[in-house]
Amino acid sequence: MPENDVQNAVEELLTNNLDTSAQQAFIEKLEHETSPVDMALLLESLPFLERLETWAQISADIKLPILVEMRADAGESIVDSLTHAELLTLFTDIDANTLVELQDIIPDHHLETVLAKMDETQLSHYSAAQQFNDDEVGHWCDHQPLVVPAKTKIKVVLRLIRRSSSSHCNVVFLVDNRGNWQGVVRINQLFGADPLLRVAELIEEDYLTLSANEDVYIAADKVAQSNESALPVITTGGLLIGRLDIGAAYKLQAEHAESQIMATAGLDENEDLFSPVRKSAKNRAIWLGINLLTAFLASWFIGMFEATIQQVVALAVLMPVVASMGGIAGSQTLTLIVRGLALGHISMANMKPLLFKELKVAILNGILWSLVIGLVTGYWFDDVMLGIVIGLAIVANIITAALAGVLVPVALDKMKIDPALSGSVILTTVTDIIGFVVFLGLGTILLL
Amino acid sequence: MPENDVQNAVEELLTNNLDTSAQQAFIEKLEHETSPVDMALLLESLPFLERLETWAQISADIKLPILVEMRADAGESIVDSLTHAELLTLFTDIDANTLVELQDIIPDHHLETVLAKMDETQLSHYSAAQQFNDDEVGHWCDHQPLVVPAKTKIKVVLRLIRRSSSSHCNVVFLVDNRGNWQGVVRINQLFGADPLLRVAELIEEDYLTLSANEDVYIAADKVAQSNESALPVITTGGLLIGRLDIGAAYKLQAEHAESQIMATAGLDENEDLFSPVRKSAKNRAIWLGINLLTAFLASWFIGMFEATIQQVVALAVLMPVVASMGGIAGSQTLTLIVRGLALGHISMANMKPLLFKELKVAILNGILWSLVIGLVTGYWFDDVMLGIVIGLAIVANIITAALAGVLVPVALDKMKIDPALSGSVILTTVTDIIGFVVFLGLGTILLL
Repeated sequence: MPENDVQNAVEELLTNNLDTSAQQAFIEKLEHETSPVDMALLLESLPFLERLETWAQISADIKLPILVEMRADAGESIVDSLTHAELLTLFTDIDANTLVELQDIIPDHHLETVLAKMDETQLSHYSAAQQFNDDEVGHWCDHQPLVVPAKTKIKVVLRLIRRSSSSHCNVVFLVDNRGNWQGVVRINQLFGADPLLRVAELIEEDYLTLSANEDVYIAADKVAQSNESALPVITTGGLLIGRLDIGAAYKLQAEHAESQIMATAGLDENEDLFSPVRKSAKNRAIWLGINLLTAFLASWFIGMFEATIQQVVALAVLMPVVASMGGIAGSQTLTLIVRGLALGHISMANMKPLLFKELKVAILNGILWSLVIGLVTGYWFDDVMLGIVIGLAIVANIITAALAGVLVPVALDKMKIDPALSGSVILTTVTDIIGFVVFLGLGTILLL
Repeated sequence: MPENDVQNAVEELLTNNLDTSAQQAFIEKLEHETSPVDMALLLESLPFLERLETWAQISADIKLPILVEMRADAGESIVDSLTHAELLTLFTDIDANTLVELQDIIPDHHLETVLAKMDETQLSHYSAAQQFNDDEVGHWCDHQPLVVPAKTKIKVVLRLIRRSSSSHCNVVFLVDNRGNWQGVVRINQLFGADPLLRVAELIEEDYLTLSANEDVYIAADKVAQSNESALPVITTGGLLIGRLDIGAAYKLQAEHAESQIMATAGLDENEDLFSPVRKSAKNRAIWLGINLLTAFLASWFIGMFEATIQQVVALAVLMPVVASMGGIAGSQTLTLIVRGLALGHISMANMKPLLFKELKVAILNGILWSLVIGLVTGYWFDDVMLGIVIGLAIVANIITAALAGVLVPVALDKMKIDPALSGSVILTTVTDIIGFVVFLGLGTILLL
């Protein structure tokens, strides 16, 4: 359902204050017309109380699929409101995958009871997942039914396939009797094949596989690039532990993109639109604090030029122009480099040509805008020398910005720090300080 | 192949200056070991000359698949370097989909010749795609082979399926003899079915469909949510014109996420890491210009307080702190809201509770940080009153930031302007101006 239908539902639930039965009816209607993903979006779009109210009216059988689709913080706000008994009902017959996705928002003491009630196979899948960090694909892979010993007869496999309803599945995985990976057989190859043959006769052994330890997002890209519907996930020992299908890959990619965008503002991708005020204030305070330090640092440098500013107040008036041009030019380079790092574009080998190109761009724009700004300033304050000072400062700052825009994210990446998160803070600190020092320094030399 | 292998390849090609034959051998090796996507990443990672050199050595048969995977600007840099003859060879037997993806980077006069040589069916698919804007799914859908008239016998369908190699395909689309959509039959349902029956006997009519006019990114999400491998794309007239499969959906989503991230810096998602200096300088100049105007505006407001600054230079020294705190607090709210708008979280109905929540967060952080900043300032300049002035300014600015952070993106969205692109410029302009005016205004009243 297109976004605006979720919005209409929010409208319906928040503004037209329906009585309980009307609300009940409306939600029932929604359940039939929309996907769990949209129901999750709806719940995320509701303030805390209305969220719980709506949740209470959702039919029990689709609550779990909806909860899985919710972002962690919003999901947690619901889980925390449930009694132990309610949680147990919610989590009866939960499968390993669902539990892996929810484990972070389930309080440990509840988790234990859930695991105690879990069925053998699922429990084994779940503990298998726990062998891997949550950035490894082994932690997230699912456990599709279509795995058979290579010696199985084709007619048996055909029966399995006819019954199977698992999505993104057009191959059957083949294993030996120890469960080690052998290869696949493509379902469409089974048509017309002799039903009494062993499926191994049609095996494709060079089918692409994922190693359980590889990064989950890189694995998702591999699945997408493979043009297969799913790739098998295999331990170093050769054991088949599950698969990553293209549908799961899509979700992983969406999640990753969201976290990258949120990171640029120092936010977590799970940040709840209606998270408790205290919690969200606390999360954001840290980021504000870090930025405050850098701001005070810039102020401290400006402070060194108090005497100059007192005599030429125009310098103070123009400081935002110097800072802004440096910040923007830098963030343009930074953004390009951060994307390059994420895609694997950038390496030591192309750093130099890249740096040169960005420098040339900076010189062109530096000259262009220093002329514009210099002239405007000269007229505005009727002071040619001031125009020259700010012009020079702009050139210097835009060039600094290009250098920092390339070097800062690359350095952070080398230090295994996410440049999407901390890149811009450091960059603007550099451009602010260099910009102010050059501008006020030149002012001191040339205007006093 | 994991990112760093692309990087290794770049290393190999740029630093160890291989002779032509060694290079040739290396590239041949790459072609076999890596996907077109990675070859595309490799070419994008090379400076212009090396890029063309490498391109020339790639075997003709995989050039087109690689070109399709490249970002527009990088792809264009190659296409522009080719002679008319080379282009024609490259584009012989090009299919409609590939041409649709490349049409923007092919000069019109070449495009005409390519179309002239195109085969009937593909040409008709191509012109069908041209009936839709490039933000509509009808423009991007592909044309998979597995479409049959509903009256076809199952044995015929089975033969088609066995031969078919199209990916993400576990249903067969059924149409009437006018090509109008009827429904699907699931391939696994065909096992054991009587081969002499018409496939219509097994038809599933309520299969989800996409309307050719809907937004291509919303369509991609629908495909992912449907848990089907592909959804049919249908005109308002009921004609089946193609399908969007989960693989294509994955690519569309990746593209969209990239464009959102690049937009925050005023960049196009196709920006080439090694785009010609002039071109990239020009692209970025516009963004710098827009930001310059807002910076001058801020300066103009500061200018109104020249007299005050002259007497209390400390005010000038501390301006960056006021601006920074407002900017950061605002960008945190902005980012949350922009995501909310993209997901469809936000509507008129939950605006009010959302605004209140953000205000409460702002008040908490405003008070916290105004105390910290007030005290630090008081000690630093040994001036209690100055501490009070900046404290008040910070509270005011952080609250303004929260208001602007919610209202600016929502207003832009209403005006059909992408808030990811212009949101932060407008926001920081607001926070800068309000911040400076309150800070310097209070300074004028309380410190003189």
